[in-house]
Amino acid sequence: MLKDFEKNKPEQKNALNAEIKELRDKLMGMQQQLRENKLPILVLIEGWAAAGKGSLIKELISELDPRFYHVVSLPIIPESEERYPFLYPFANAIPENGSLVFMDSGWMESLVHKLMRREITEKEYRRRIRQINEFERQLRDGGYLVLKIFLHIDQEEQEQRLSALLANPETVWRASEEDIWQHREYKHFRNAYEEFMDKTGDTIRWHILDGSKRKTALRNALRLLVSQTEEALSAGRYVGAPFDEDFPLLRMPKLADVDLSPTISDEDYKKELKQLQTRLGELHNLIYLYKIPVILCYEGWDAAGKGGNIRRVAYPLDPRGVDVMPIASPEPHELNRQYLWRFWKRLPRSGHICIFDRTWYGRVMVERLEGFCTEKDWKRAYNEMNEFERVLTEWGAVVLKFWIHIDQETQLARFTDRQNTPEKQWKITDEDWRNREKWPQYEVAVDEMLQKTSTEYAPWYIIESNDKKYARIRTLRIIVNALEKACENHLNSILN
Amino acid sequence: MLKDFEKNKPEQKNALNAEIKELRDKLMGMQQQLRENKLPILVLIEGWAAAGKGSLIKELISELDPRFYHVVSLPIIPESEERYPFLYPFANAIPENGSLVFMDSGWMESLVHKLMRREITEKEYRRRIRQINEFERQLRDGGYLVLKIFLHIDQEEQEQRLSALLANPETVWRASEEDIWQHREYKHFRNAYEEFMDKTGDTIRWHILDGSKRKTALRNALRLLVSQTEEALSAGRYVGAPFDEDFPLLRMPKLADVDLSPTISDEDYKKELKQLQTRLGELHNLIYLYKIPVILCYEGWDAAGKGGNIRRVAYPLDPRGVDVMPIASPEPHELNRQYLWRFWKRLPRSGHICIFDRTWYGRVMVERLEGFCTEKDWKRAYNEMNEFERVLTEWGAVVLKFWIHIDQETQLARFTDRQNTPEKQWKITDEDWRNREKWPQYEVAVDEMLQKTSTEYAPWYIIESNDKKYARIRTLRIIVNALEKACENHLNSILN
Repeated sequence: MLKDFEKNKPEQKNALNAEIKELRDKLMGMQQQLRENKLPILVLIEGWAAAGKGSLIKELISELDPRFYHVVSLPIIPESEERYPFLYPFANAIPENGSLVFMDSGWMESLVHKLMRREITEKEYRRRIRQINEFERQLRDGGYLVLKIFLHIDQEEQEQRLSALLANPETVWRASEEDIWQHREYKHFRNAYEEFMDKTGDTIRWHILDGSKRKTALRNALRLLVSQTEEALSAGRYVGAPFDEDFPLLRMPKLADVDLSPTISDEDYKKELKQLQTRLGELHNLIYLYKIPVILCYEGWDAAGKGGNIRRVAYPLDPRGVDVMPIASPEPHELNRQYLWRFWKRLPRSGHICIFDRTWYGRVMVERLEGFCTEKDWKRAYNEMNEFERVLTEWGAVVLKFWIHIDQETQLARFTDRQNTPEKQWKITDEDWRNREKWPQYEVAVDEMLQKTSTEYAPWYIIESNDKKYARIRTLRIIVNALEKACENHLNSILN
Repeated sequence: MLKDFEKNKPEQKNALNAEIKELRDKLMGMQQQLRENKLPILVLIEGWAAAGKGSLIKELISELDPRFYHVVSLPIIPESEERYPFLYPFANAIPENGSLVFMDSGWMESLVHKLMRREITEKEYRRRIRQINEFERQLRDGGYLVLKIFLHIDQEEQEQRLSALLANPETVWRASEEDIWQHREYKHFRNAYEEFMDKTGDTIRWHILDGSKRKTALRNALRLLVSQTEEALSAGRYVGAPFDEDFPLLRMPKLADVDLSPTISDEDYKKELKQLQTRLGELHNLIYLYKIPVILCYEGWDAAGKGGNIRRVAYPLDPRGVDVMPIASPEPHELNRQYLWRFWKRLPRSGHICIFDRTWYGRVMVERLEGFCTEKDWKRAYNEMNEFERVLTEWGAVVLKFWIHIDQETQLARFTDRQNTPEKQWKITDEDWRNREKWPQYEVAVDEMLQKTSTEYAPWYIIESNDKKYARIRTLRIIVNALEKACENHLNSILN
């Protein structure tokens, strides 16, 4: 791949310049179409230190309207200081519909770097390779054009360029220790890059460009960008098909079969609430100390008691270490990106707890039923969300999902109570009544969701909430148990 | 103030609990009104280590709907690692309309800490005090309710609490070295806190609460929050009046008096462009090395040539160190906050360059003319923007503002050309023609803006752009000169 890479032949300068100009004009002309077709383009530029990644990007954007692109250059965070999942910064930086993001090194450089530095194990490396493939596929399936370029120079060329940088006092700082180390370990890096490209080239292929002649590299990058953009524009927005993938699924009952009769006495409630909250408060200290991220997901029927349940869980927690994230309908800048983007953005730092009041599962409930996405989109989403949660748990997170469940009669009683109590009226809207009429459709969707997304690593719990107090105690107990276990596992993993 | 602070008397427990319950119910009942009245509330809770700030916030939010509040706890970044203006994290964290933010320590703790650590000079401290007063006033004038609470305990009480934390292995980590240092230096801190409150209490007053009895402190905080919220709700949205303040203003010509005839030959253009771009590229290295932030602001008539001008400036810059920020009309989450918020959020890190394609000056142009804000709002904005830019330059930023200027005939010619050239048609919209009809009103607004906001520290330059090439050279030259000077000043400041 890289070892026997054939260099570009020298070309006639005038012809090259003319073609570059022509391609640039084409690209400029496509900007508006990009916007109209809402096509998002992510251009990942990886490659050797001193290969000219920065200059290449500079030339690629030089004629573009700044409203249409963004250049992103993310620092590599040492694994020991990492407080988010590996893919977090990249997932945060994806382009909006109708615009381009140029990434000056990205997940490839970051992962290969960590492997070479022995900051991560081989096992973790393979996991991340899998995560990267999933991430790229999700972007493609969500309508993104992803273009991956590796800018190649050989060891000799690199030596010349680094020496030139080092010889000039104004540019000496541009050749980092990191770069010099890479140069010394050129062969090892070459093997690592090759392996990486080999393992991540199936979904979105890699384009290796010769960086030794800058103009030729620019022309070739422009050719790629222009032809792929043209193709994507003429093909229309791509919508990925649902796909099969094996997840360790848990058997879930149908909602209709859930016994909603359990209750708790006031006396037991008070006693247990106090005990569980006290323990949860203590565990929060450990979670913080051990840097375990915790993600609690709440879904449920309107008026099922989500709010009150969440408050009982949040109450004993140190407010500095917990965030409750109410999820409403997406804002324009959120709608304009892959649907999981707004959740990636809201992930807690390790050691923090995030409680989602409604979640990404809106995709397979309201968005499915109201037609806010295509059938392919929501059908594909089950597995995409399983993948997303696998990324979270592999990062070390505790992920628990609660369906707060009531029956239709209880909902009616609570709606009516809200309607008739002045200080509760704001809690009930016409939309709630409309959703209620769709109860049967929602039940089908929820049942399907529970069947397809309750995994061993991120299980769903159906919480019987006809008696709200019972529901709170049950939820708290599940959380306390899960955190106890997570802390125990953490200690074991240190000791072993 | 703190020295002879009188402790609260012990109170009858039942009455206290009853009042707390009543106040909590009131607060809960007000949530919806808050939303409807679009009132944003910022509650800043400062105070001694171990005074119970976290617990107080926990109790304040315990019954609130998570959709209505957010708890923010910002770490103090050592001055040496600071890459943004002092107020940046706080300005970023202000609440949306209709919601509450509780800040667990904020600008007070951060500034006093830095002073006590001698990380900043006395002069810098006084500057920041001024910046804080301006910031708080701007929030108030923008309709925010700002509530500032200082939770006080005496040295003896602090000792008991810290000892208790240190004695328990599960909580020992909660008493930081910082806290213990504060305790040892209690008297110095007390003086510093008192001085801070003394100097920042005029616009928004401080409320000192006795933290020694938790319940009483909670009741008192609830009383304050409830009464101030009620007052704000019944008074209706506050809109601050314009105010007088002295800024070092530069004399600016009227637009009508600007000679738009200057041109440049193609030959000179090419030569000068190359020279200036080369020099700018070199300066970018120094800017990065010296960590100087650079903020370039572009405003101008439609079709004046802003875009092409920006591209010529951005081209020689390393894309990793420059961001072009196109400013469109605000999104909902931006409209729901003080108008400068979306610009605070977009500030560059020190050492980076940010080019704003349109800016905060939209406030006194389009928002003024289209009635998107009240007269008081845009009249007040001149000074607020002068203050904002003073914060930026005091942070060390180079701030340059360009009005790209053409006459009406030139605009007409360019509009017509766009209309008649298929690949340029997307650049011209009905709105452009409508804006053109309002040229005279815009001219009045722009003239007033230039008179009132061209300061010595953040000057406006009117760029004659009937000849776009002339305009580009002139802009580049201004930028190059300003950066040369900034680098020189930086070296001098190190050497002296």
